[in-house]
Formats: sequence, structure tokens, C-alpha cells
Amino acid sequence: MKRSLIRRFRKIVGPERCLHSPEDLYAYSHDCYARGNPELVLLPRTREEVSSILKLAHKEGIPVTPRGAATSLSGMTTPVRGGIVLAMNQMNRILEVSTEDRLAVVEPGVVTLRLHQTVESVGLFYPPDPASYSISFIGGNVATNAGGPRCLKYGVTRDYLLGLEVVLADGEVLRTGSRAVKDVTGYDLTRLMCGSEGTLGVITQVTVRLIPKPETKRTILTTYRTLEEASEMVSRIIGAGILPTTLEFMDQAYLRTVEEIMHLGLPTEAAAMLLIEVDGFEETVERQARIVEDFCRRFHVLDVAVGRDPEESDRLWIGRRIGTVGLMRSSKFMISHDATVPTSQIPRLVTETHRLAAEYGIKLVILGHAGDGNMHPIFLLDPDNEEEMARFHRLSREMFRITVECGGTLSGEHGIGLEKRPFLNLQVDAVGMRTMRAIKKALDPKGILNPGKFLDEEPTSPGR
Amino acid sequence: MKRSLIRRFRKIVGPERCLHSPEDLYAYSHDCYARGNPELVLLPRTREEVSSILKLAHKEGIPVTPRGAATSLSGMTTPVRGGIVLAMNQMNRILEVSTEDRLAVVEPGVVTLRLHQTVESVGLFYPPDPASYSISFIGGNVATNAGGPRCLKYGVTRDYLLGLEVVLADGEVLRTGSRAVKDVTGYDLTRLMCGSEGTLGVITQVTVRLIPKPETKRTILTTYRTLEEASEMVSRIIGAGILPTTLEFMDQAYLRTVEEIMHLGLPTEAAAMLLIEVDGFEETVERQARIVEDFCRRFHVLDVAVGRDPEESDRLWIGRRIGTVGLMRSSKFMISHDATVPTSQIPRLVTETHRLAAEYGIKLVILGHAGDGNMHPIFLLDPDNEEEMARFHRLSREMFRITVECGGTLSGEHGIGLEKRPFLNLQVDAVGMRTMRAIKKALDPKGILNPGKFLDEEPTSPGR
Repeated sequence: MKRSLIRRFRKIVGPERCLHSPEDLYAYSHDCYARGNPELVLLPRTREEVSSILKLAHKEGIPVTPRGAATSLSGMTTPVRGGIVLAMNQMNRILEVSTEDRLAVVEPGVVTLRLHQTVESVGLFYPPDPASYSISFIGGNVATNAGGPRCLKYGVTRDYLLGLEVVLADGEVLRTGSRAVKDVTGYDLTRLMCGSEGTLGVITQVTVRLIPKPETKRTILTTYRTLEEASEMVSRIIGAGILPTTLEFMDQAYLRTVEEIMHLGLPTEAAAMLLIEVDGFEETVERQARIVEDFCRRFHVLDVAVGRDPEESDRLWIGRRIGTVGLMRSSKFMISHDATVPTSQIPRLVTETHRLAAEYGIKLVILGHAGDGNMHPIFLLDPDNEEEMARFHRLSREMFRITVECGGTLSGEHGIGLEKRPFLNLQVDAVGMRTMRAIKKALDPKGILNPGKFLDEEPTSPGR
Repeated sequence: MKRSLIRRFRKIVGPERCLHSPEDLYAYSHDCYARGNPELVLLPRTREEVSSILKLAHKEGIPVTPRGAATSLSGMTTPVRGGIVLAMNQMNRILEVSTEDRLAVVEPGVVTLRLHQTVESVGLFYPPDPASYSISFIGGNVATNAGGPRCLKYGVTRDYLLGLEVVLADGEVLRTGSRAVKDVTGYDLTRLMCGSEGTLGVITQVTVRLIPKPETKRTILTTYRTLEEASEMVSRIIGAGILPTTLEFMDQAYLRTVEEIMHLGLPTEAAAMLLIEVDGFEETVERQARIVEDFCRRFHVLDVAVGRDPEESDRLWIGRRIGTVGLMRSSKFMISHDATVPTSQIPRLVTETHRLAAEYGIKLVILGHAGDGNMHPIFLLDPDNEEEMARFHRLSREMFRITVECGGTLSGEHGIGLEKRPFLNLQVDAVGMRTMRAIKKALDPKGILNPGKFLDEEPTSPGR
């Protein structure tokens, strides 16, 4: 990028928030999946600055990659075509929490956990809880349509959006939605932006709907001899009219791998473990927990433990929460896919994915949100081993083919980004791609917003 | 339309499903808001027929207005620019109900009530319940993103869509979503189509998510001395962590007008009536009903009645359910707006709308879904009285201006169509309109789909 152009961008945000030293560029070149090559990093503080930056970038045809906390697992914020990284860290104010209208207005750089804590302190609840919630930004959650364990009962980020403020590719400011919970005025631009992975606009303000905080919860940890027993339990629970807050699945490979590294006392002889949480009014929670315990006794599960207070609950979550940290420690590189299928197809997906992993010689463990069919096959890899990565690529294609055959989707919550771009044609046909590209072209005719990603004809190979 | 062209369309669907006698054209010229002037009515039975019709219409530049049960209150299906009415009546099969994966696949012409009954017979539940549910079609519900009383607790049509099959303007078949409940693969075309009012495509198949049928419910009818008391009760109930299934509001003008016509024994001295319904597990329902009754006693409401079984419940609903039939009988023409505001703003909207009605001399009663701020000011009009209609138009503009000032929206569930087109600029600014039009142009470059509606520069004045 020419020095004269850099000077013009610097004029918009000032020298402290315009970074281009090699160290700064390197620091902003990564997300949790891959590495790009930015030429300039800008940290705007206002919608007006974002607008000015995009006006200039649009005029000059400079790529702009919006970046939240860069926790993307799919390479959504990797700046693969150079240009500008637009880092939203400094737009991090909670502008309003209304207990009366049960909503919050926040800037995109607010950490999800901070929003959780702020609204819970006044008796309200913001359900979406992606695994990265203690560091992820709300803006990134919206751009990804992030999910999380609690989404089984409460729905995903999309379901909590009332309105957005979005700066479009040409720098114009678009306001979508309203403060009303029902709104069918015009096209649903709020939800078009949600999950668009930074390719249609830069989110500068988010209005979220809040709900009353559940009164209490109960956690139940159960283990099974076979995959089928675990799967039947899921059907049984939901069939009994119980919609748990979470229904987390861990397979034997996960339990064994984590136990080997971390020595948590996990049941390595079990074929699967289910972590079940129910929340709501005390009476309902009590009854639902009783029904689940009854099922466990009647159908002879291997083991069942009930957490009756927050401390006991937290203990039951340990294997699920810190296990992935252990996995990261045990391998150079980890890819967590999020193939999602109708719940009846979970045993097929789990079994076939393990078969493929054995066939292709790739280390695999499987986690998942079993209640909504959102599985997380986690592959432990060596990114420097090109041959292994090529094998992994073939395995992924096979797995996604099966996923789509099951009526499922490539991604339940991580998005497509760079990672799943090569597999997109398994799910989205030519008409679908043409339609998405027509919308992209209508809103970003020069293609400056987050280029090189899922909509591109020729996706870019990422660095690590 | 030229005879030779009519012959080509007739060839696609056969002579029985290609109508153009004056009687048939008249029968298909209306929806519940206005009248248009179709030149041809086609009743396709398959996606292939819809696709062939659109290919030909696209080539010849013929307007196509998709039509469900024509229960639209906003003129969404009025064929104002002539051309073809595409009546979806005959695509009315329920293709699948899966209890295992809790989903149904249906054609657009399935009556909403039939879907309700079919899934409830196997213990499942499809929550959206627009007032017209006993005659409306699912396809129209999707095109409108229809709401209903139960949407307070359960969300609107949008929240139950897994995937759609849509024939685009050029006749290509687009498939969106999947059978998985979480799906973030590409842009959210499912929700872009939902609520697009027939302007982006013709829906030919709908996959909906189902939930377990609630175990039981309880209905509570309460009356109040003042609007404020009713409004405070709504805040109190939700503040107590109770999310009722429905929280229906009826104002004094409604009670008096309906009572005068129908003699149901409604409490005409009350300033407002709230019909509260809670559902779920027996224990929870029992406790929630008790809390609401306690509130009623402590805060001295005028009256409270509890329906403890389905028959008693149905009796309490009578005033709400058949009241509008009485209103229709009492006036030549009725317009039900659906101005929607954050709940704290309901008293302001109700009070100011009554003030406006008095000022402009228009008869008004107000219903509403109080829990989500979705009000229904219902105006009783004489459409042949041009001067009165002009006054009503000015009143509407004032009312919508106040609605938007309150952070609300022109439409919570009826859509914009023809009816609210003149007021759209109160809520959607130039950037918003430009963005919507860019999307429309990208997907329907010749503008053949449902022309003359909310996106048009110059909206068409409807006939009655």
C-alpha cells in the first residue's frame, strides 16, 4: 500500500490507532484457523471513523477484513488478500441495558462474557454461549451467527437480534430492525447480515433481546456402554417433552485422550458421556431431573452423577470445559469441524467419521451438542506434514458428503470462512451460489469486504 | 395478455388449472385488503410447473403475483399490475412428519390449522398461530413471517424454518437451509425469503422445525380500571420471570363495541382486559397461574377468572376470538394496523392513538399482543367515503410517526404490502431502501415478482 494512502487512513483514526510495523501486522494476521498478510491495521472508535475508512477503501479498491476477537475457527477473519484489518477492539461500550424493555444496545467489541455478566446482574439473560464466550466479541458472534451449548433450548445469536447498525462497503450507514421484538418491515436485513462473515458490511452497533434469567438449574452427568444407548437417551429425554438447556456429548476417544493428558478421573471405559443440564423454575427443574434420573436407572446406564448446587455442577463440567485445552496441548494443530445433522443421524455420523479417521490414519475425538445434532469432530493434526493435511482434506470431504446425505449442514455454528470453502459445493448447488454471489455483488460491487472467502470462485490457500 | 401467450401458459398447467373467465379473474383479484386486475390465474401442482411458468413469464416480462389463501391484511397478494395470479391452493400436501427429528416438510398450500392438527396428533407442536390460522396457508405465513398470540413465548414463523424450496424470478429452483436445526452455511437465504412478501421468489416447499407439545395450559382473564394498571400487570408478570404463551390486550372501546353488537357479557366498565395463558409442565403452569392470581389480588384488579380446563379456557377466549367478526359486521371496512413498540411504550401508543382517532373523527378499537408490544389498532371505516379515507391516511401517518419515535416498527406481523407503503420512509431511510432495492434487483432484475408493492418507487393505489 502506498505511503500516501496510508497517510490518508491515518488521518481518519490518528497515528495511535493506525498500525503498520511488522510486529503489529504479524499480531493482526492470525485468527484461530489461519494466517494472512495485512498491510495496515486500523482500530476505529466510532461509526463515523468506520464509515470514512470504508469510503476511502471503496474508492481505492482496498480489501478490508473486519476483525473481532479473531476466535474464528474457520478462518473468517484471516486477511488473505492483504489490505486493511479493521480491528473492532476499541468499539467496546455497553450503551444501554433496559430492564423495562428487556434489551441491550452494545458496540461490536464487547466481550460476550461481559454482556452475560452485565445483564445477569439485573436479573436478565443473554443465552448464546459460544465456547469462546470469555474472549469472543459480540460483533463476531453476530457475523458468525454463533451458537453454543445453551442454544439447544434457547436458540442461536440470530434469535436474539432486534436490530443492527452496519457500515456498508461504500461507507453508507445501514440501520436494520428496531427495538421491537416483532418486526416484519421490509426484508430481514438483520438476519441477512447475521452470519454473513464480514462479507456484506461492518457491524458497528447491536441491539439484542434479553429474557428473564432462569431461576435455577441442575446438571446431570451420565455415561454409556454404547453409542446407541447414549443416542437413545437423547431421543428419550426430548421425547418426554424435556428440552434441556444443554445436552453435551463426549465420545470414548475424547474421554481417553483427555484423561491421558490431564488425569481428571474421566470414565475411559465408557463409549460415550452425556452432560445434561436443565434450567427454569425450581419445580420444573426438580421434575425434569427426576425423569432423567429415572431413565438412567431404568435403562441401566453405566453411571450417573447429579450436581445439585453450582459447585457440584461446575465439577461435572470440568471434563467438557477444560478437555479441549488438554487436546490443544497434546497436538500441534487442532481442527474442530461442526458438521450438524438431524438428531436421528448422530450415531451414523459419529460411527462413519470414526471409520474414516481410522481409514485415513488421522487422530479424532468427538464432542457435540447432541440435542441439536451439532457435532464437533476434532482432528489432531500436524500442519507441517503436507501429506497428512492432504489426507485430512480427503477425509473431510467424505465426512461432509455423509453429513449432507443425512440432511445436515457443513456448519452448525463455526461458519464457512476459508476452512469449509472447498466443500461448499457438497451442500450449496449452482443456483444457491449464484444467488449468494448476486447479493454480495449488489451490496459490495467492488468486492472489498473480506475477500478470498466462501463466496470466491478461487479460494485462497491460507498460511498457518 | 395475448391469446397466444395464454395458450403457452395453459400448456404448462392444462386447461382446468388455467383460468381467465371474468368470474374467475374477479374471484382471484382480492385479498383481505384490496383488489387488483389479474389477466390470468394459474394453479400449479408441482415445482416444475411453477418453474416453467416463471421461465416464460420472465422471458415475456409478465407480472406474477403469488397467492396463498389471500388472508393478507396489507394487500400483499393484490395483483395490482395485472399479469398472472399464481394461486398455490393445489400444492397442499404434507410430505413428511418426522417425530424422530421433530420436523415436517409441507407444500405451501397446506392450511396452517391442518399442520397444527397433524403434528399435535403425534405429540408435536408448531407454535405460530396467526389469527387467520384456520384458513391461512403455510406458504403465505412464510412470505409474511406471520406471528400470532402464542409468538410471545414461542417466536414467529421465521423461528421455525429449517429450509425452503423457492422458485426464483427466472424459474431456477433455489434450495435453502437443511434438515438440521443449526445451520450457518452461507447467507441466511431462508430468512431473506421469509417475510419478503412474494417479491423475491415463489415458495414451493417448506421444512419446519417442531417442538414437543406442551403438557397443559391455564387461561386467566383479568380486567382493569385503567390502562396503566393493565400495563403494570404485564411488566409485573414478565418481571417475575414468567413468559406466558399469550398476553392478549383488549381496550374499552373494543369491549364496548363488541358487547353492543354481540351481547357476550363483556365488562364494558373496564378500561382494559388482559387474557393471559401459560403453558408447559403441570407444576410450572400451576405455580405461574398462582403468581398471576396473587398479583391480581394484591393489586386489586377489577376482576379475574381462571379457566382450569379446556372448556373453561375456550369460554374465556370468546370475547377475543369472535369479537373481530362482530366488528366486521358492524362496519363496511376494517383496517387492522399492527404498530409494534417496546413494551414500556404500550400505554403511550394506546393513549396517543385514541387521541388521534378522536381528533380525526375515526372509529377505533384496540387489541394487541401486550407481551411483545404488538398492538392492533383496528379502524372502522367507510371505503366509499373518500374524505374519511384521506383523514384516516393522515391519522395513520401520525400514529406510525409516534410508533417509530417509540423505537417501534410499522409492522409486527402483517407486513408492508400496499397498505403501509406510503409510511415506509418513516422507518426505513434512503440507505435501507437502496439496500432492499439492490437485493430485489439482484434476484429479480426484470421486477416481475409481485410488482407495485413496498419496494416500488411509485406505489399503486388499490381498488376495494
